Amino acid sequence: MAFTRNPANGANEFYGEFLINAQGEDVVAGVRTPEPVLKLKDQMPKTYAELLKVRQILEKHFKDVQDVEFTIQEGKLFMLQTRNGKRTAAAALKFSIDMVKEKLINWQTAILRNPADQLEQLLAPIFDPAEIKKAKVIATGLPAGPGAATGKVYFNADRAVQAAGRNEKVLLVRVETSPEDLRGMIAAEGILTARGGVSSHAALVARQMGKVCVCGASSVHIDYEAKTATIAGQVFKEGDHLSIDGTSGTVYAGQIKTAPSEIISGLLNGDKTAQSTEKFRSYAQLMKWCAKVTKLQVRTNADTPEQTANAIAFGATGIGLTRTEHMFFEGDRIDAMREMILADSLEARQTALGKLLPYQRADFHGIFKALKGFPATIRFLDPPLHEFLPHSSEQQTDLSRKLGISVEKIMGRVHELHEFNPMLGFRGCRLGIRYPEITAMQARAIFEAAADANKQGYKAKPEIMIPLVGFKKELDLQVAIVHDVAKAVMAERNTKVAYSVGTMIEIPRGALTADEIAETAEFFSFGTNDLTQTCLGMSRDDSGSFLPPYQEAEIVTKNPFASIDQTGVGQLMKIAVAKGRSKNPGIKLGICGEHGGDPDSVKFCHRLGLTYVSCSPYRVPVARLAAAQAAVTDLKAARK
Amino acid sequence: MAFTRNPANGANEFYGEFLINAQGEDVVAGVRTPEPVLKLKDQMPKTYAELLKVRQILEKHFKDVQDVEFTIQEGKLFMLQTRNGKRTAAAALKFSIDMVKEKLINWQTAILRNPADQLEQLLAPIFDPAEIKKAKVIATGLPAGPGAATGKVYFNADRAVQAAGRNEKVLLVRVETSPEDLRGMIAAEGILTARGGVSSHAALVARQMGKVCVCGASSVHIDYEAKTATIAGQVFKEGDHLSIDGTSGTVYAGQIKTAPSEIISGLLNGDKTAQSTEKFRSYAQLMKWCAKVTKLQVRTNADTPEQTANAIAFGATGIGLTRTEHMFFEGDRIDAMREMILADSLEARQTALGKLLPYQRADFHGIFKALKGFPATIRFLDPPLHEFLPHSSEQQTDLSRKLGISVEKIMGRVHELHEFNPMLGFRGCRLGIRYPEITAMQARAIFEAAADANKQGYKAKPEIMIPLVGFKKELDLQVAIVHDVAKAVMAERNTKVAYSVGTMIEIPRGALTADEIAETAEFFSFGTNDLTQTCLGMSRDDSGSFLPPYQEAEIVTKNPFASIDQTGVGQLMKIAVAKGRSKNPGIKLGICGEHGGDPDSVKFCHRLGLTYVSCSPYRVPVARLAAAQAAVTDLKAARK
Repeated sequence: MAFTRNPANGANEFYGEFLINAQGEDVVAGVRTPEPVLKLKDQMPKTYAELLKVRQILEKHFKDVQDVEFTIQEGKLFMLQTRNGKRTAAAALKFSIDMVKEKLINWQTAILRNPADQLEQLLAPIFDPAEIKKAKVIATGLPAGPGAATGKVYFNADRAVQAAGRNEKVLLVRVETSPEDLRGMIAAEGILTARGGVSSHAALVARQMGKVCVCGASSVHIDYEAKTATIAGQVFKEGDHLSIDGTSGTVYAGQIKTAPSEIISGLLNGDKTAQSTEKFRSYAQLMKWCAKVTKLQVRTNADTPEQTANAIAFGATGIGLTRTEHMFFEGDRIDAMREMILADSLEARQTALGKLLPYQRADFHGIFKALKGFPATIRFLDPPLHEFLPHSSEQQTDLSRKLGISVEKIMGRVHELHEFNPMLGFRGCRLGIRYPEITAMQARAIFEAAADANKQGYKAKPEIMIPLVGFKKELDLQVAIVHDVAKAVMAERNTKVAYSVGTMIEIPRGALTADEIAETAEFFSFGTNDLTQTCLGMSRDDSGSFLPPYQEAEIVTKNPFASIDQTGVGQLMKIAVAKGRSKNPGIKLGICGEHGGDPDSVKFCHRLGLTYVSCSPYRVPVARLAAAQAAVTDLKAARK
Repeated sequence: MAFTRNPANGANEFYGEFLINAQGEDVVAGVRTPEPVLKLKDQMPKTYAELLKVRQILEKHFKDVQDVEFTIQEGKLFMLQTRNGKRTAAAALKFSIDMVKEKLINWQTAILRNPADQLEQLLAPIFDPAEIKKAKVIATGLPAGPGAATGKVYFNADRAVQAAGRNEKVLLVRVETSPEDLRGMIAAEGILTARGGVSSHAALVARQMGKVCVCGASSVHIDYEAKTATIAGQVFKEGDHLSIDGTSGTVYAGQIKTAPSEIISGLLNGDKTAQSTEKFRSYAQLMKWCAKVTKLQVRTNADTPEQTANAIAFGATGIGLTRTEHMFFEGDRIDAMREMILADSLEARQTALGKLLPYQRADFHGIFKALKGFPATIRFLDPPLHEFLPHSSEQQTDLSRKLGISVEKIMGRVHELHEFNPMLGFRGCRLGIRYPEITAMQARAIFEAAADANKQGYKAKPEIMIPLVGFKKELDLQVAIVHDVAKAVMAERNTKVAYSVGTMIEIPRGALTADEIAETAEFFSFGTNDLTQTCLGMSRDDSGSFLPPYQEAEIVTKNPFASIDQTGVGQLMKIAVAKGRSKNPGIKLGICGEHGGDPDSVKFCHRLGLTYVSCSPYRVPVARLAAAQAAVTDLKAARK
């Protein structure tokens, strides 16, 4: 049995094995240990030469790497079977580049030869291959953020941050994560959770930050009080080592050596040595080809200048989603945010908002600078307010002391904001409708930052996005505030800012009334995460209890939070596109949400005729490849 | 100013008031106290006679009761204005019946003259008019269950039940209610909650049971520990009296006398005196007319034989929704249910289900008997399992003792079943997919009960409804179990049961893929409560924080949980009707959920061409009237 080239690393060498006095089954069954096919050269030189000839004939004919079975009977070579060979991402890349050089295929075909869903393998840090063989698998979860990470475990964000401050390599291990864990996630090499799916908070943030993540490893039993995790009978205390492989979802005991991908070092760190590697150059060539053919633009979901810069290095042409709320968790600003939420009156709320304004303005300014003239879709405050309040009595006491507000009042407000189904609750534009002053502050921060950036020559292009719109009037009311503030700031600064206002289509009613909404909206961005949750009546965070049996019973073929449910959610998107264009033919259409980085979803968006997809920075290459593949497929279909 | 008939009670008498030496504004402004119009007879007999003549001319011309303004200058009568007069439900009924007798209008027009949304006023118990004038309003909330109730307040279901056992009239006062409060709600005259909208659990159950209910009275501050409610500065202890008017949403301090409506006494209790009253006879006449013209059938949502019998007395032609889970809360059966949820293995689960089977069978048997041959749509287990487990440590300890299961294990299971958004979680058919044995038990209970009822000559017609279907395959898998069990039971009992299996369309994906689903489903029932929650991305229980500002800003004109959002949710219904019929032209279509009792929604369902609407028993007359009005409107439009 053999491959016409090396399916692991892509080398143009005959690669395989054989057994003397045996059948193919014996090789597969592993009863006897076969010998490398190269040895045949010595043992049967004539037949080996014949094999090499066949190898060339096959590749010429099929124009792809073949996986063949052969037998040699009394010196005569028989070819039993041939088929396209399975390959790693690294091999696929090298095959495709080499075959273009060899004129076996053209560059368009080379694009199709790289499986988009494997591309992340090329970007992910890897475990040292020798070490991993010796390591012991103690648990498995969902592969949520590809790559390899090793470090000391910590069960709480604060202690993870402290440990990272002591230059420890840290793994944050949590039952599940929430926005309060963000600092800990930033500080960690990787994240391991016992609960949550591939679209849980942990997974989402991990992918956005390019962090390694294994989530939903249910056999990991965490005791926060005792500060231990029990895995496969073994107790891990804080400071003990674990290693996780986010490409496979595997958890190992102990420490395993890792290394970053050359593509990452070359693109993001400008590492010249990395840039000179074949892997880097091949990747760069592939992306150059993609850019030649693609129709669908790829933007990024980014909340910081650093994420933005990374995404642009990966080839993103703007931001499709900035979640302004992530900014509220950093440092002191969370206190101002809490003060705002606890405020009793418009005046008190505005005082607190006044404290948030400079932070937001600085954030946006940083993003506009990092964007170098690319547009930024900025979403207004979206999550339910209770997510920002402290829930433990210790934290509440702390906050009470800081703000001079009684603990009872804080508890009362937490209680008041508690919701049975927060996903369907007081969030999105409902916040801005009830508290228009929040909308006004965020708009002011954007326009002031844009004015500053323009003055420095950066050409800010804010696209303001109102979340969770289901009724045209919601958008009308919010848009009016944005225009008012824009006018005021432009007058104050005596400048012009080019901006547009649009909405997320993320609840079914928004899609179904897209014609009405498009009368006001200058763009739609499909929030397919929430659209999936509402269209399917399925909570992303709770679906772990029934999605696995659903996949087993083939009720769903793919996790609908990872790949767009084209039959259901896709139908709503089609309705929204058609209705939106019926009233506003030039409306700009995009998609944010994690689906923007899923190859099948990207191809679906291409067929829908969207302007762009937006995904987390480390998914940008995947989306670019998938978008290019969709365009090549179109070209090939048109030629037929 | 005068009415051509009495707008309060409908009496055919000239009714109004006048002021000498004054203008109309003086009457309206209330600066001077006007005199009854009858006195004009003595003061200006000639003009009075002229007025009576005008009264007749106007009613003949407009064929409706008029609200007029007039002035008399130097003996000469001037008519200043006339318009159709506003009226109470009682007056509307009497006007319409009288005017048919007087041949001013035909019976079809009489149907239109009774505002369907006011009809419940006729059915509601009322406060003694003299006493109410003296009573003090101390709070207001949402009018959630019409009628008047007075009683001693209790803040917990157990104590409410005990007090009712001591023959006390009880008002259950809660921050909000949950299924665990059900016994207390049954025991109470009325329910007052501090939180929740007109579609909250409290309101829903209250209307289904015909209980008086004021909900969301946010100025009622309840302290469960102290067992007090503070309202307008006044502290009410358990046992103190409150009175609530669920028609207006008003809360009064103290006790106020009430009386049941004659229509209720006549229909439900067969009270002969009540049946001989004009109010009762007029109502009966109106309903007879309705029956002559209506196209849309009216069914009821009922979980007990008593509710079923009431609904049939109100004119329902079957059950559109039996929620099987309500049955699991009564008496000992909750323990068996909990045992099932806590079971570790299929065997243990089946043992517990075996205990539930006889209860369920008896429940269904009672319902089939009460239905007298009308069909019953029975929905399989729907709510998330954690709703059945005890959440306080006291109750958990109790259960641990009863079932011999450790408290840790109970706590663990509660934790495991906890969900972030239970509405979008592990519920509906997802339960039956993961635990097919639950589906099998429920199917067995239905078919065994039907076989028993048939033997006794009752002709059971179960229509089994699978909840929360979004994928055809979900339905296929559940339907297969139902058919298997049906076959088995019919063989065991050597009998036939006429049954059908269908689904609720309650999530957008179900509506969007209705063509696929209709290949399996024999009927659709629109679960518009959940369809509204998912289509609008709006939690019914949490919408209290933003719906009021939404109504103020005219983003929504009506509460979408009370009246179907025809633009959004209605669009999904239209899609589902068209797609469902495309694959299954004869598919039976209905609606359950509280919208089935809302006049506008009923009319919308008529226009959609549904077979039936289903609503709570006390809403059946409203739905019948609305359905008849829709049919009359159609006839009139056709004639034009």
